[in-house]
Amino acid sequence: VILTVTLNAALDVSYGVDEVHPGQSHRVRTVHQRAGGKGINVARILHAMRHDVLATGLAGGAAGAALRADLAVAGIPESLEPIAGESRRTVSVVSRATGQATLFNEPGPPVTDEEWARLRERVGRLAAGAAVVVLSGSLPPGVPDDAYAHLVRSARAAGAATVVDADGDALRAALDAAPDVVKPNTAELAAASGVADPWGAVEWLRDHGAAAVVATSGADGLIARAATGSWRGWLAMDLVAVNPTGAGDACVAALATGLADRRSWPDMLADAVGWSAASVLSGVAGEVDREELARIGSSVRVEVLDGARLDR
Amino acid sequence: VILTVTLNAALDVSYGVDEVHPGQSHRVRTVHQRAGGKGINVARILHAMRHDVLATGLAGGAAGAALRADLAVAGIPESLEPIAGESRRTVSVVSRATGQATLFNEPGPPVTDEEWARLRERVGRLAAGAAVVVLSGSLPPGVPDDAYAHLVRSARAAGAATVVDADGDALRAALDAAPDVVKPNTAELAAASGVADPWGAVEWLRDHGAAAVVATSGADGLIARAATGSWRGWLAMDLVAVNPTGAGDACVAALATGLADRRSWPDMLADAVGWSAASVLSGVAGEVDREELARIGSSVRVEVLDGARLDR
Repeated sequence: VILTVTLNAALDVSYGVDEVHPGQSHRVRTVHQRAGGKGINVARILHAMRHDVLATGLAGGAAGAALRADLAVAGIPESLEPIAGESRRTVSVVSRATGQATLFNEPGPPVTDEEWARLRERVGRLAAGAAVVVLSGSLPPGVPDDAYAHLVRSARAAGAATVVDADGDALRAALDAAPDVVKPNTAELAAASGVADPWGAVEWLRDHGAAAVVATSGADGLIARAATGSWRGWLAMDLVAVNPTGAGDACVAALATGLADRRSWPDMLADAVGWSAASVLSGVAGEVDREELARIGSSVRVEVLDGARLDR
Repeated sequence: VILTVTLNAALDVSYGVDEVHPGQSHRVRTVHQRAGGKGINVARILHAMRHDVLATGLAGGAAGAALRADLAVAGIPESLEPIAGESRRTVSVVSRATGQATLFNEPGPPVTDEEWARLRERVGRLAAGAAVVVLSGSLPPGVPDDAYAHLVRSARAAGAATVVDADGDALRAALDAAPDVVKPNTAELAAASGVADPWGAVEWLRDHGAAAVVATSGADGLIARAATGSWRGWLAMDLVAVNPTGAGDACVAALATGLADRRSWPDMLADAVGWSAASVLSGVAGEVDREELARIGSSVRVEVLDGARLDR
């Protein structure tokens, strides 16, 4: 089983409106809500791809209850730690005229020391039954910056591999615990390392502890470096991206599956490219269309890079 | 006691952001939520003005529970009818840079025939102890257009006077039951009557059943006609309106108090002008600042109109 950890789980609310005009009043035509947060989205994708998954993290209040109810309806197993605070909502206002989404992200709920301690205990316990632990997304107030370092060590002690998808301080602090894979996008890569050149930044993250780095760059695909080599992966066809927001989570889901199934790096990266591409073709963030995946599979490219080509 | 009926009660959520940019992602800095809907706002003002009030209406789901909890904290007595549906939320995104508010109003919850029947029964019962029943705001799906006509008749049978603040079909249908006062704004007045001239439109509403009409026109004040005369009321000073959205509810609260206390029309209209003005000076919709009210009281003007001046 793959365990996903979402410390800042959210209730993702989507409003359909005609068009967004700042300063005006809008009639919301449709309301949809769904469990969200990066780790929850990874769990949703793994569940859709028929991989055993268990979602943990922190959830509380009315929004927490609604997101748990949504996971139950979707059939996604969860073992979320209850908190007294109210889980955040994200409101995505989608214009019917343009398809454009305007997002409003609430701050995360306050987390007490006791709640954070109980979550650590829970992850340690659940990791004992997991092949891979995925740590995704932002940290709510009250959870320390080195949260992911704690959880990576705890997962390793339990015998599980780890994938970290975080940014800023949370990503930098996680490196201390030597996670198996970190997956920043290129903006997060540059921000965390302070190094503008992507390959230089990848090396900086490895120097600071990451065993492997997979850096995604939207439609340009991804670059990866592990102890055994370096690769570049991309899709050799043009896609009309319907919803690019879930691509990173699909990539993480593919990497977690690859680690769990002990696949080779090129195979794992091919899945990462394919799942990400299939995800952006879906109208709903965090979903991978299996038919699309089969259709685009033959256009996935993974190139093995030798030392001389690392500077390209 | 004044009974306020809010069929489409809401949880009003306010997001503080730096600035609103359509198509972009916004970090919400502050989140506030409060019980809302026009009738609830009238109840809040009456409570602040130390008048006995009871809030009824329909409320359900997590938003319904949150709005009831807010009323309890505010000390506003309520007797809301529970429904299975989820009460609507309104999201007001306030830009810190400009103070500008961008509103997103969810549609109301579905209401079953049984729930609507139970609400009618509840209003009939509560109206027996009320001097005035206030019927304010939109109708949620499932509640018939002639809802306010039903409730006006039921209030009258119980011996209570009625104030209706509605628009469109709900307002037109209410006229059949001859409410004591209807309070449209000038846009609602023209839309409901199909008559562009305000005094002509007021006459149309009276011809169709309203005993009295008070039509508000923002900073221009109000015009009113009852069986005993016609009046114009306004504030003879310039105000810096902080939040104009609650002015209509403050006006309705003043009219309800006037009916309950059997005040003269000029006195009642003077309060309506004063309370509305004090409300726009408050940063929070549906609040009347008693100190501001005392300060601006001497600038309230109510003019008795004779027949010849009705066409001015």
